[in-house]
Amino acid sequence: MKLNQNFFRLEDDYLFSKITEKTEDFSKKNPGVDFISLGIGDTTLPLCETVIRAMQKAVDEMSRKKTYRGYGPEHGYFFLREAIANYYKKRQVSLSPFEIFVSDGAGRDIADITELFDRKSKVLTIDPAYPAYKDACIIDNNEIIFLKTSEKNNFIPVPDYDIDCDIIYLCSPNNPTGAVYDKKTLEKWVDYALKKNAVIIFDSAYEAFISDEDLPRSIFEIENAKKCAIEIASLSKTAGFTGIRCGYTVISDELVFQDHKINELWRKRQSIKSNGLNYITQRGAEAVFSREGQKQIKSAICYYKKNIKVISSSLYSLGIWVFASSNSPYVWAKCPHNMNSWEFFDIILQKAHVIVTPGEGFGKSGKSFVRLSGFTGKKETLEAVNKIKNLKLTKDFSRFA
Amino acid sequence: MKLNQNFFRLEDDYLFSKITEKTEDFSKKNPGVDFISLGIGDTTLPLCETVIRAMQKAVDEMSRKKTYRGYGPEHGYFFLREAIANYYKKRQVSLSPFEIFVSDGAGRDIADITELFDRKSKVLTIDPAYPAYKDACIIDNNEIIFLKTSEKNNFIPVPDYDIDCDIIYLCSPNNPTGAVYDKKTLEKWVDYALKKNAVIIFDSAYEAFISDEDLPRSIFEIENAKKCAIEIASLSKTAGFTGIRCGYTVISDELVFQDHKINELWRKRQSIKSNGLNYITQRGAEAVFSREGQKQIKSAICYYKKNIKVISSSLYSLGIWVFASSNSPYVWAKCPHNMNSWEFFDIILQKAHVIVTPGEGFGKSGKSFVRLSGFTGKKETLEAVNKIKNLKLTKDFSRFA
Repeated sequence: MKLNQNFFRLEDDYLFSKITEKTEDFSKKNPGVDFISLGIGDTTLPLCETVIRAMQKAVDEMSRKKTYRGYGPEHGYFFLREAIANYYKKRQVSLSPFEIFVSDGAGRDIADITELFDRKSKVLTIDPAYPAYKDACIIDNNEIIFLKTSEKNNFIPVPDYDIDCDIIYLCSPNNPTGAVYDKKTLEKWVDYALKKNAVIIFDSAYEAFISDEDLPRSIFEIENAKKCAIEIASLSKTAGFTGIRCGYTVISDELVFQDHKINELWRKRQSIKSNGLNYITQRGAEAVFSREGQKQIKSAICYYKKNIKVISSSLYSLGIWVFASSNSPYVWAKCPHNMNSWEFFDIILQKAHVIVTPGEGFGKSGKSFVRLSGFTGKKETLEAVNKIKNLKLTKDFSRFA
Repeated sequence: MKLNQNFFRLEDDYLFSKITEKTEDFSKKNPGVDFISLGIGDTTLPLCETVIRAMQKAVDEMSRKKTYRGYGPEHGYFFLREAIANYYKKRQVSLSPFEIFVSDGAGRDIADITELFDRKSKVLTIDPAYPAYKDACIIDNNEIIFLKTSEKNNFIPVPDYDIDCDIIYLCSPNNPTGAVYDKKTLEKWVDYALKKNAVIIFDSAYEAFISDEDLPRSIFEIENAKKCAIEIASLSKTAGFTGIRCGYTVISDELVFQDHKINELWRKRQSIKSNGLNYITQRGAEAVFSREGQKQIKSAICYYKKNIKVISSSLYSLGIWVFASSNSPYVWAKCPHNMNSWEFFDIILQKAHVIVTPGEGFGKSGKSFVRLSGFTGKKETLEAVNKIKNLKLTKDFSRFA
């Protein structure tokens, strides 16, 4: 038996395991210390009332023979696919419910979607980005091209026509930088993909955080995007579904390569390799898209965004360069005194007992940055920020300068 | 852009779509006809009380900040992994909770697991079998070897040492035949896998239907199986979870190839390509394994098995050869008068308005058989069986003789 050798090309230390390890190590040496984490991108507010009600009702249905449901439709119940289509309609994106594929979260589809394409496809990914794009490609042995971003281009890259590729991962608002692509930039990417006969995998997991009306929340707001893009969305951050698991993947009938509709391939693939999503979850997700649901989830999003304001203004007052969009749940901060991200992580952990996410975990271009998240509670966020502020900046930080 | 050409090697008509198509076609030509389906392998009884209570409580927890849960552990909550380990303990199989990986159902893991092995691995599958084994291998371009079974070996094959392979799919109780592997046969397979340095993927989705104490419900009841087998199980049929989605994959620390623990590879793969399972589902699943839960699910299993008795004795009285195990939810019946399975399907559909599953959909060796399922309601099962009995056997069936 020979193993898939690509697994041994993965980096040994996954970002979050290394963070846990370092924290536990410090904790052992300094018992009794309490940490506040501004590190993890996980929601902390409870599910909204409308969603809870819908799920309670669905559980109840499963308890009676008349209303019990076994296997659901493989690609999601029509009621949910229709609710999602209506959600797109509000932004003038017209989709058939059959172009929408319900999933158990964006993460899985992001990794699985490349299976539709030739296994030797070249993949372009932005640096820094969510590490799963790269890792999934390593397991599948795809060639990966990294397109670097920096504060010079506000972490928003434009396509480079000298680069040839088949698959392009874009994420807006970007994780970890929080950078949001404007219409003009996305138009350039759509043009590039069409010229290169490539497909864009557009990760819109954070779209609900965009409040600026001029910024696109879906790539399908761009003309011709349906001909070159697949959008993968999630309710994880939108509605606190990280522990519930629901996402959706949109593939238009217009996306055709080699005379084949890509959504038909996906339909086939999912029929064989997946079994549909939990009914109770789908009723909860339907409720997210109701008028009530939309109102209720917005209050959680505002709460998280207020934390972002607190974090960014505090860091700014310390003279730290911060990249904080008002359309994202993350603050992307430059490490002071030329520290690298693990050094800055260590000092904040050890001196302020606050956990942040080192930018290096998202790619080489992140090595001078850390990501701070707005998902922690308001009280804890304030406390964490005050602890960072209380560090004697020059003294503590300059040790590494 | 080049597509994954393997998709075009998949058969166009998936079994269940063809059944639906034929039924709809007949329905259009004969409006007002009501069908009874003994075709689909889907549960119909509601979830048991203990499971419902556990899920209601979990939904409620998600509504409060203090008890809300975001991302869960990637491979399942410890409480569930421990409950599953205890379930195995009852059958003298000792497992650590960390050798158990919670999933959203067996189907996905059955397809994904081959990714751990070299992409050129040779796959052995039993004919007839659940079609997803074969289809997943086609998408992944694995070479597939079919090992035929028939009534001569009671649909239980023994290994053929002339065949070399790397991955072996076994399913017991088998879908569609209902055949259950005894200990001696499984020992032969374990010996064969060890000699060939191959891995057995043991699909035990129907293990809860085994009531005969002498028959193994897990491959790990066989000595040395931990060194060569992965078990993939599901609560779909066990506890009516087809619409809830929960399964688990067991990979022992003892399963090592090329000096690598296979469960470590799987842990890595799932961390990158999946995001854990719904919390509410995991609480429901935990309840399945409680004393109360085990008692309650047994009453549903008995109900389905009583249907199996009704179906098999009725077909037998018609002179039809039936293979009906008392440890499976399926009856595997030979088509009379040398009909093939689609011919017999057609006649039962058109004359008795009953839907069965043509054996051909499960492989070439199934082409003279149909599968009838015990999952339909008691009343409907009786009615369906009476309609089949009322066919003037010689007259109607002989048309095809």
